[in-house]
Amino acid sequence: MATSRTPELRKDAIHNRWVIFSPARARRPSDFKSKSDPNPNSKNQTECAFCAGHEHECAPEIFRFPPESTSDWKIRVIQNLYPALSRDLDPSNSESVGGQVTITGFGFHDVVIESPAHPIHLTDLSAAQTADVLLAYKKRIHQLRAFDSIKYVQVFKNHGASAGASMSHSHSQIMALPIVPPTASARIQSMKEDFAQTGKCGLCQVRQDDLLIDESTHFISVVPFAATFPFEIWIVPRDHSSHFHELDNDKALDLGGLLKLMLVKMSLQLNNPPYNFMVHTAPLQIDSAELPFTHWFIQIVPQLSGIGGFELGTGCYINPVFPEDAAKVLREVSIPN
Amino acid sequence: MATSRTPELRKDAIHNRWVIFSPARARRPSDFKSKSDPNPNSKNQTECAFCAGHEHECAPEIFRFPPESTSDWKIRVIQNLYPALSRDLDPSNSESVGGQVTITGFGFHDVVIESPAHPIHLTDLSAAQTADVLLAYKKRIHQLRAFDSIKYVQVFKNHGASAGASMSHSHSQIMALPIVPPTASARIQSMKEDFAQTGKCGLCQVRQDDLLIDESTHFISVVPFAATFPFEIWIVPRDHSSHFHELDNDKALDLGGLLKLMLVKMSLQLNNPPYNFMVHTAPLQIDSAELPFTHWFIQIVPQLSGIGGFELGTGCYINPVFPEDAAKVLREVSIPN
Repeated sequence: MATSRTPELRKDAIHNRWVIFSPARARRPSDFKSKSDPNPNSKNQTECAFCAGHEHECAPEIFRFPPESTSDWKIRVIQNLYPALSRDLDPSNSESVGGQVTITGFGFHDVVIESPAHPIHLTDLSAAQTADVLLAYKKRIHQLRAFDSIKYVQVFKNHGASAGASMSHSHSQIMALPIVPPTASARIQSMKEDFAQTGKCGLCQVRQDDLLIDESTHFISVVPFAATFPFEIWIVPRDHSSHFHELDNDKALDLGGLLKLMLVKMSLQLNNPPYNFMVHTAPLQIDSAELPFTHWFIQIVPQLSGIGGFELGTGCYINPVFPEDAAKVLREVSIPN
Repeated sequence: MATSRTPELRKDAIHNRWVIFSPARARRPSDFKSKSDPNPNSKNQTECAFCAGHEHECAPEIFRFPPESTSDWKIRVIQNLYPALSRDLDPSNSESVGGQVTITGFGFHDVVIESPAHPIHLTDLSAAQTADVLLAYKKRIHQLRAFDSIKYVQVFKNHGASAGASMSHSHSQIMALPIVPPTASARIQSMKEDFAQTGKCGLCQVRQDDLLIDESTHFISVVPFAATFPFEIWIVPRDHSSHFHELDNDKALDLGGLLKLMLVKMSLQLNNPPYNFMVHTAPLQIDSAELPFTHWFIQIVPQLSGIGGFELGTGCYINPVFPEDAAKVLREVSIPN
């Protein structure tokens, strides 16, 4: 199918960047399988610092679900023991010497422990339990919004050592930054320009039959038209919403089900690959009413190949699988009962 | 040394992006060592399609050094057997359907075989032989300039499987693109704005004692002020030059020596890590005289850790090693005679 195609470049209008689709480098789309064990060093590990009973080995807790639980907690949000940014610095310090600009590394770097038990991965949770993880992100973002110096919050999950996870116990991370990072700036700028031209939000229009994987009451899941990575998946709210933390309980439950379904389909199809997902939202200190052109979404990326000099040098990615083919393969994955 | 520091963000003024320096996540700078064998599958391999005598197993040759050589060639530039772009497509085809922009994947994807013998790596070549590799890049770029549809040429090297090399035989790649890729656009825009403010090219000013690793007659090697990756190295021409292909023979010999020295120092210090280098130049179809603000350079990146959800999501990188510390460590590497 893909092998009869010639290479083409597609413009990712959301991020304003080109992706090269190159079928000559591809196996058949259905042949993509991960070769690496996502957690090679955890084969016999049954307990770690993130497990129930080991709370004292962790950095301080921020909150837990349920709030009054003791040893029977379901989710804990804690500080990262090795934070990339420090909550103890003066956020206002910046200096420019000879054109070289530095600001102090004020910020927050937290961990969401998704389950008290070591062997339970995110895909083992029910839709309602997955919703609770999403609501833990939401609650923490609402707390972080109180800091004027925090401009952006990046929620992300690394699953598997080669996807950046240093702990095999299922967890995600929340990083609160004193800047709006490059990808978010580029996305907002690109979507703003698109809105100025068309009068529409680009992600309100993302649904397209040949790219659709699945849909729920409030969300749709697609392979984006110019997917950067093979089998990349986006989960997008049907109704316009700029900030992830606007998510209400009903939508969280609906999203929990669709997120779980996408992760299960991806794992079945691609042989349990290491993966990342990222919540892409709008900068914190801008009101939703001013953002008719930004629309939050979740990006899921299975890590099937590394990044080489071409990608590092150009910022341009080569994707061997056409999005229509990836969407078809993922649509057709059947989940065993 | 670095452990007494607090995290800080530095602005990379060349690419207009922030990098987070986070010593809490670091070992001592001198403790960084690569753990992975760059070529795990080639332990016993002594011959491959890139070796002398196997030319018939390769895609067509473009040229060789010396030009009249037979089995005694030193360097071959050949087509990539699995090109990401195709030289056989009509370069003018593009279409936009409902705001989705596609262009045909016209372009060139070539391979530079750096040595006829399998066990010889780039660091085993003399300065003069390394210069010949650089001059092969130059010659091929001059050929590719003849195509009006080619807007940018990315020269890059992947060393080691985890850095993207699918062949262990020493080689680099040249990709000619029908677009100016995102990193190059961002760099040019950022350097142009900087030039408008200061009247100076940012890379003409890059020399700074505490970031200097070494220098030669025509080039300097530094760790950049806001290095994206630990132990990243830039080699920058002392005199302003927008395009790599302006390199003359004298400067190629000088650069060959400094490039070799940097690769040897990096390999000794970091335990032969997988690495990438990229030649960052200016778009092809713009005359040097119009580019007082762009300055070509070589970026060398040892691959010491993978990319996780934070980097994928934000485009922002966390570097555990302060550039001054990396520069000091690299300055002090002594090369055995």
